[in-house]
Amino acid sequence: MEKIKCIISYDGTNFSGFQIQPGKRTVQGELEKALTKMHKGEHIRIQASGRTDTGVHAKGQTIHFDSPFELPTENWKRALNTLLPADLYINQAQIVPDTFHARYDVVEKEYRYYVWNERETDVFKQNYYYQFPYPLNIHAIQEACQYFEGTHDFTTFSSAKATIKGGKERTMYEVSCNRDGSQIEFVFRGSGFLYNMVRIIVGALLDIGQGRRSPSEIAVLLEKKDRRLVGATVPAQGLYLWQVKYED
Amino acid sequence: MEKIKCIISYDGTNFSGFQIQPGKRTVQGELEKALTKMHKGEHIRIQASGRTDTGVHAKGQTIHFDSPFELPTENWKRALNTLLPADLYINQAQIVPDTFHARYDVVEKEYRYYVWNERETDVFKQNYYYQFPYPLNIHAIQEACQYFEGTHDFTTFSSAKATIKGGKERTMYEVSCNRDGSQIEFVFRGSGFLYNMVRIIVGALLDIGQGRRSPSEIAVLLEKKDRRLVGATVPAQGLYLWQVKYED
Repeated sequence: MEKIKCIISYDGTNFSGFQIQPGKRTVQGELEKALTKMHKGEHIRIQASGRTDTGVHAKGQTIHFDSPFELPTENWKRALNTLLPADLYINQAQIVPDTFHARYDVVEKEYRYYVWNERETDVFKQNYYYQFPYPLNIHAIQEACQYFEGTHDFTTFSSAKATIKGGKERTMYEVSCNRDGSQIEFVFRGSGFLYNMVRIIVGALLDIGQGRRSPSEIAVLLEKKDRRLVGATVPAQGLYLWQVKYED
Repeated sequence: MEKIKCIISYDGTNFSGFQIQPGKRTVQGELEKALTKMHKGEHIRIQASGRTDTGVHAKGQTIHFDSPFELPTENWKRALNTLLPADLYINQAQIVPDTFHARYDVVEKEYRYYVWNERETDVFKQNYYYQFPYPLNIHAIQEACQYFEGTHDFTTFSSAKATIKGGKERTMYEVSCNRDGSQIEFVFRGSGFLYNMVRIIVGALLDIGQGRRSPSEIAVLLEKKDRRLVGATVPAQGLYLWQVKYED
């Protein structure tokens, strides 16, 4: 048996999220279908760094699986990409030690969120950006970002539905925001993320950018641990799982 | 009755082309559905500058229609965009003289074609570029582009299936090619275009970029008026109807 780690990208538009579901087109479903075909019908189960929701994209999702095949590292990538649909691609495949686990061994995850800040709709951005037509004060957003960095309980900024073993404390190494023309990019690097956390934080940051709240309120909101105090979750199509880091 | 001219953009990915067809989702079909809803069931027929094929995009397609409504110019755009799907957008709407015709009055059309020239597949480019993994000599392509400018019979570079009233002579005001990182942009501005003409020319230019032909062969190929002498039509998803110009 060999353990293979793959870094994959996908356009989330036409997937019903990552996790396998009967009758739905999912990333895990397509990957396992390709692997099963390659293994002549033997079902190969994959493990990912985590799930992504419907419409969420990935540039660097990471998975692993075990295979009875002994192929050179470079053949895995080519063989799998031949069997995969056009919206799912293996960026990199490598043989890893048997102890590796794509979920349990994560040391850092990076998500990015993209806003297209233009009054006019751009049909080519609809699936890849959250199109936001109102003026935004980027300096206020940047000031607010700093309050999220470090270790906090993120209860206020995660889905109230989620039940999590081990509590809602997470460490953010970077929360930043930059404008490049009409594009606004949010970068989140952290030890881990709660359900809907990035999309709820971006929603709160856009409120601040519109002057509805002041940046310093973030400290109070974190303290209060109450999801009802902040606004709506921004849409899935602006979100990208950008990178997953593991110990060497 | 008022005549309305609209400049529209669409992401061609999920349309079976422009022209209305029973049981298919087309640009014309969606536009006429929205207009018919707005006119309380009265069928409003549109006229476009020309058709586009399945998967072809538009940044500046132009249409007209007649309406019994007398709305201020700025209301047409808002009213229609409210009724249209997310992949179809009215950039601009204006009331024009009754003599205007979106097809017969065209004086110039601009198409662009986008190639993504990278060895690695980018899942986010699949519907918007032709992904071409082999090295290209842009200088050779640029030299070849010049042979297409001016007035020529474009029989060699158009679909053999097309039957055209008035012959296959067209005037190209600009045929150019530029690289910006991995992106290669082709610009075509002309008096009119034959069926598949841009996609066949780009196919021939990519052959030249790979050294399979020399740039000066274009003059001979134009002369010979034989579609069989050049290679394949490149895919639809790299093609954009960019702009349509009319006399003031």
